[in-house]
Amino acid sequence: MTELRRVRVVGTGLLGTSVGLALSARGVAVTLVDPSPVAAALAADMGAGVVATEHDAAPDVVLVAAPPDVVAEVVVRELSTWPDAVVTDVASVKERVVESVIAAAPQLAGRYVGGHPMAGRERSGAVAARSDLFEGRTWVICSGDTPAAARDVVVELALACGGRVVLMDPVEHDRAVAAVSHVPQVAASLVAAELRGLSEEAVSLSGQGVRDVTRIAASDPLLWTQILSGNAQALLPVLADLRDRLDAVHDALSRIAAGSATHEVPGPRAVLAHIIAEGQDGQARIPGKHGQPQTTYSTVAVVIPDAPGALGRVFTLVGESGVSIEDVRIEHDDGVAAGLLELVVLPVRAERLRQALTDAGWKAHVLETH
Amino acid sequence: MTELRRVRVVGTGLLGTSVGLALSARGVAVTLVDPSPVAAALAADMGAGVVATEHDAAPDVVLVAAPPDVVAEVVVRELSTWPDAVVTDVASVKERVVESVIAAAPQLAGRYVGGHPMAGRERSGAVAARSDLFEGRTWVICSGDTPAAARDVVVELALACGGRVVLMDPVEHDRAVAAVSHVPQVAASLVAAELRGLSEEAVSLSGQGVRDVTRIAASDPLLWTQILSGNAQALLPVLADLRDRLDAVHDALSRIAAGSATHEVPGPRAVLAHIIAEGQDGQARIPGKHGQPQTTYSTVAVVIPDAPGALGRVFTLVGESGVSIEDVRIEHDDGVAAGLLELVVLPVRAERLRQALTDAGWKAHVLETH
Repeated sequence: MTELRRVRVVGTGLLGTSVGLALSARGVAVTLVDPSPVAAALAADMGAGVVATEHDAAPDVVLVAAPPDVVAEVVVRELSTWPDAVVTDVASVKERVVESVIAAAPQLAGRYVGGHPMAGRERSGAVAARSDLFEGRTWVICSGDTPAAARDVVVELALACGGRVVLMDPVEHDRAVAAVSHVPQVAASLVAAELRGLSEEAVSLSGQGVRDVTRIAASDPLLWTQILSGNAQALLPVLADLRDRLDAVHDALSRIAAGSATHEVPGPRAVLAHIIAEGQDGQARIPGKHGQPQTTYSTVAVVIPDAPGALGRVFTLVGESGVSIEDVRIEHDDGVAAGLLELVVLPVRAERLRQALTDAGWKAHVLETH
Repeated sequence: MTELRRVRVVGTGLLGTSVGLALSARGVAVTLVDPSPVAAALAADMGAGVVATEHDAAPDVVLVAAPPDVVAEVVVRELSTWPDAVVTDVASVKERVVESVIAAAPQLAGRYVGGHPMAGRERSGAVAARSDLFEGRTWVICSGDTPAAARDVVVELALACGGRVVLMDPVEHDRAVAAVSHVPQVAASLVAAELRGLSEEAVSLSGQGVRDVTRIAASDPLLWTQILSGNAQALLPVLADLRDRLDAVHDALSRIAAGSATHEVPGPRAVLAHIIAEGQDGQARIPGKHGQPQTTYSTVAVVIPDAPGALGRVFTLVGESGVSIEDVRIEHDDGVAAGLLELVVLPVRAERLRQALTDAGWKAHVLETH
């Protein structure tokens, strides 16, 4: 195992900043670069490393966390700039990057090792970064024909971030993400688009099902156009198969709506049941969530009236109580500050906080431990 | 408002038993019937009411919570058995039930009022029932041409269960649930089915996105075959539109994969970006858990170190600053209080708050307005 000392992170968005936070916490010297100086400075303020200067020592590894369509170009530039560094990236499509790097700089490509940490959030940017973003998450490394020494240093980086390393061929990786990431994204967007024409009343019937199915439809169109375009070859057969199955559903429902004779076998209801059962089988293959460390907390819920400064007054009171707040959530009605403030605290502190709030005239309850 | 005294619940699954629990808790006399005597007895044991006998007094309302494909038949039977009762149901498709009841018993149909409480759980049966299952959830009531007195007693029942009543025409209801419930279910099943053929390694790349999109694909094939069949007419145009959009995605990716000339307008990447943006627009229409902000806000982000009482000290400072906090979020590592606290405030207050925090030695930034 090599010694990971200096890492240069190019691109301080969600992933780059999270890598910086994770590595800095382990004592690695991280330098940060971003086309936006404010973004780089914010990442540095958060503790992800220091903003790079021209006097920096050469890095052992450069991690490129740039938008998908410029990744290959940035990788080639970094390979040229740092002749002794291994360069990796975090782009979600791999074959095209590998090919572009080899085409542009065949003599340098031996130091490029593709990577894809399977972690993300709906929110983007340094502000959403977390040092534990990769904890227990799969981090695919596509080493291809790269020498083992170069691969090992990227494996070390991924492990230092808490990732679970999976070595895969780039083509195999791209086929896998087509099914487990890109097709779900397309489906979420298509389902969500059908909500546009609904009345307010109709859309108010939305429950948890449609919320879950369409959550990722909120993602950035430019980013996803880059990702889907970059994986077109692997996506086409999966989308074609999905379309055939959709046609079968439409055809079955047409026959049911027409009330036509149902003595053919399989009848339209059997077709529907079969397709839903295939979905059950597929869904069952998804491995369960990796175990999160379980600390038990209590929640103190405070009713916040819709009155000026109410939330601020609670904040003051909580500050004065001396109870350490582990997490905070607020549930409230559309556009108004009134609602329920949930303060997550250690169980031994919950009653003291509730009492302090109640004494000051607030409605406060200790909720279930979770 | 009438007085709801005696309610007969036919079908003691998740919904029927939950209604029984909610009404019994409010002092309503509930009798319970189910084709399975054990299921009815279980619901009674849980406190949902008493098992019906042939000596029961006539109910004011009969609530039919039977499987979708037998609802109309059971409704007609109950209308005949109890000539003074209003009969309602909880089936998720409404027009077909209304039509079937009118066709089978036109002289009785004036006492039928369709209902659809938008509540459910992944688990089914009396054992999963909860008295608060409908608390704050939408309960659609399709009164159609029914006299107002019959409608009002069902509204009273829904309110007694804690529901938020929405009056809708049956056809309009069925179109709405096609888009917000049935099409998401079909899409989830189709996406999940594509996971069946993957290698273990490939399926291990599954992240939160595919988990969310496919969660409801675990639902019961028979139940969903009944639901989709019952709403075929309303589903067909939505599925056809979704298929057209899917074809457009497939076509755009084919052109990108073929690397053909891209001087046509709109080019394939513009088509993809447009479809993803349409999905964003649709997704944004779903009323958020936290509601949609009606005002534009700014966010002040404060770096919270992992030190005892840090969050509490920020709360105190924010309280003292007099700036009204509209919303609050915190991003942090599991189990420690360190992280980034986001304070959402009116844009004109953001700089004052940032200054107050910075003066007190905190790292604070004003983020993008959203």
